[in-house]
Amino acid sequence: MSKRAYNFNAGPAALPLEVLQQAQEELVDYRGIGMSLMEISHRSKEYEAVNAETQQLLKDLLGIPEGYKVLFLQGGASTQFAMIPLNFLSEGKVGAYVHTGSWAEKAIKEAELIGQTAIAAETKPGTLSIPALSEIQIPENAAYLHITSNETIAGTQYQEYPDTGSVPLIADMSSDILSHPFDVSKFGLIYAGAQKNLGPSGVTVVIIREDLLEKANKKLPTMLRYSVHAKNDSLYNTPPAYSVYIVNLVLKWLTKLGGLEAVAKLNKEKTDLLYDVFDNSGGFYEGLAEKGSRSTMNVTWKLKDEELEKKFIQEFPSQGFIGLKGHRSVGHLRASTYNAVPYEACKALADFLKDFQQRNG
Amino acid sequence: MSKRAYNFNAGPAALPLEVLQQAQEELVDYRGIGMSLMEISHRSKEYEAVNAETQQLLKDLLGIPEGYKVLFLQGGASTQFAMIPLNFLSEGKVGAYVHTGSWAEKAIKEAELIGQTAIAAETKPGTLSIPALSEIQIPENAAYLHITSNETIAGTQYQEYPDTGSVPLIADMSSDILSHPFDVSKFGLIYAGAQKNLGPSGVTVVIIREDLLEKANKKLPTMLRYSVHAKNDSLYNTPPAYSVYIVNLVLKWLTKLGGLEAVAKLNKEKTDLLYDVFDNSGGFYEGLAEKGSRSTMNVTWKLKDEELEKKFIQEFPSQGFIGLKGHRSVGHLRASTYNAVPYEACKALADFLKDFQQRNG
Repeated sequence: MSKRAYNFNAGPAALPLEVLQQAQEELVDYRGIGMSLMEISHRSKEYEAVNAETQQLLKDLLGIPEGYKVLFLQGGASTQFAMIPLNFLSEGKVGAYVHTGSWAEKAIKEAELIGQTAIAAETKPGTLSIPALSEIQIPENAAYLHITSNETIAGTQYQEYPDTGSVPLIADMSSDILSHPFDVSKFGLIYAGAQKNLGPSGVTVVIIREDLLEKANKKLPTMLRYSVHAKNDSLYNTPPAYSVYIVNLVLKWLTKLGGLEAVAKLNKEKTDLLYDVFDNSGGFYEGLAEKGSRSTMNVTWKLKDEELEKKFIQEFPSQGFIGLKGHRSVGHLRASTYNAVPYEACKALADFLKDFQQRNG
Repeated sequence: MSKRAYNFNAGPAALPLEVLQQAQEELVDYRGIGMSLMEISHRSKEYEAVNAETQQLLKDLLGIPEGYKVLFLQGGASTQFAMIPLNFLSEGKVGAYVHTGSWAEKAIKEAELIGQTAIAAETKPGTLSIPALSEIQIPENAAYLHITSNETIAGTQYQEYPDTGSVPLIADMSSDILSHPFDVSKFGLIYAGAQKNLGPSGVTVVIIREDLLEKANKKLPTMLRYSVHAKNDSLYNTPPAYSVYIVNLVLKWLTKLGGLEAVAKLNKEKTDLLYDVFDNSGGFYEGLAEKGSRSTMNVTWKLKDEELEKKFIQEFPSQGFIGLKGHRSVGHLRASTYNAVPYEACKALADFLKDFQQRNG
């Protein structure tokens, strides 16, 4: 087997090695049944157990209170961008959005196809940052307030969440769900494509407060109605069973690590390694996100010297680092440090950053 | 490892053992890159290769002519039931459907939510059969004619396809795509959830004639527009990459088997084993589908004696047979004999059927 790469991909992204090894062991013959999990009915007792247990693991890890449903859907966050306004943005209401970057913008653009929208707050132009919660202005006729808890491309992350009173708070948590504990009861709906912190692509987790199911538009195509999936326990049609199974293994791995308090501590340690290098480099490196908005999931930075940045980009692959080029819309560099990226990978990157500066500074 | 089961599941269903073994070998470290295929970007050169090659394999196996796009979508056939009328069923047009059973009905019900529909032909009441092509009446203002090429639950299958002239012919081929060669150029759009003949659940293959992309409704949510996926080569958002990869391996396996002529011959041999037992049982067993509509993918039958049928249902699991209970809506028995179900499994079932009759006849 090849040496395991230092995988800083932005998504699909690193998975825990233990999870991959267990999946490998069970792939051809799932726990002695003489078939792969991919070969059995989604209504078999084996898959029903995966479906139920995965919901329960998420409930336990996130401390999801009574009155919420956990759903496993298809189509990624991009489908949620449409499903949210289709289900909730009725005539006379406005979908309120906090605009924090590329992903928030995609959610807004999709809602604009469907109904009336409003920008409740936005990132200060020329910065990569999350607006202060006090700046958020929710219109009186808001159907919901939508936030993007972590902007994968900018490397910015909410440090706390707004209180929205009776207006449902909806969050795209695709790139930081399960990275730290938070109070789920503040939210009406949380969604996350799996391919960053939860598992492989192909499944989207939705956590929805049950009262919202009743509010939803009942004339929509069946597959776009949250109520249909909730009523059918995510088995209305054939689910992306293998992806849900990998999520199940990832959640068990997180539980064994000690849950979200332990994971949050580790994520902070991992990213502090990198942010500390930038802040102590005398300006050689510079973090792109404003300090108060720095993400523990996506670390973005640049080199002051453009030529040296090119040299850095040429050099890092030969050192076993994968996925450090920034997204084309922001440029520069980015290390995605999701839960499954080991401390050792971040340590190796911090060492390489220091070494590169020493050689070129 | 446990003995491999005789897997007659209706879907998700059997996969070729060689495919599962290769997937297992490559799961943790995909071809020496130090990462799993689940851990890399859908814009990486490795996944781009999977995406392109899988399209090409389908084009080669099915003989897809120029002027068609192959797409890998999410949401299953259930999402296609809605996407088809959403994209094509414009004001003043009618969606024409041939009603052949449970799956055709689901497609019709979904279209009824969206626009005007018409039944172009239907199964004769009290039978499990496909109507004669001569019975199909296409309304003048038809947006399309929709057929269900194989009814998984009834065990009925079109033996030939209608000519629809300038009206686009659309087919749900979820349960028999790649089971035999046919003329793709007769069709405007073909779709198939993967979990029967193509791979694991989580990906839906769509083959669409390019002129239909331009006709489609442009005001739809982005993820529901065929044109968006076609323009972005199925990479508009993160695709269900691992499912597509397994489809890739299945298509290579089919190619190695000798392509669709060889596969069709094998499927006929496999199901003749079973139909011959019924027809030579002196009425002990009876095939449920009319002879001219018998499927080579789902074989449905009953025992004349109700008590003996109960006994059969109790006995078969102990003989290593999985998935032989009929769907609750039709009852009795069903063996799904998709491409990946080996001849040996069908032979074992035929032998068991004969043995059971001998012991109880």
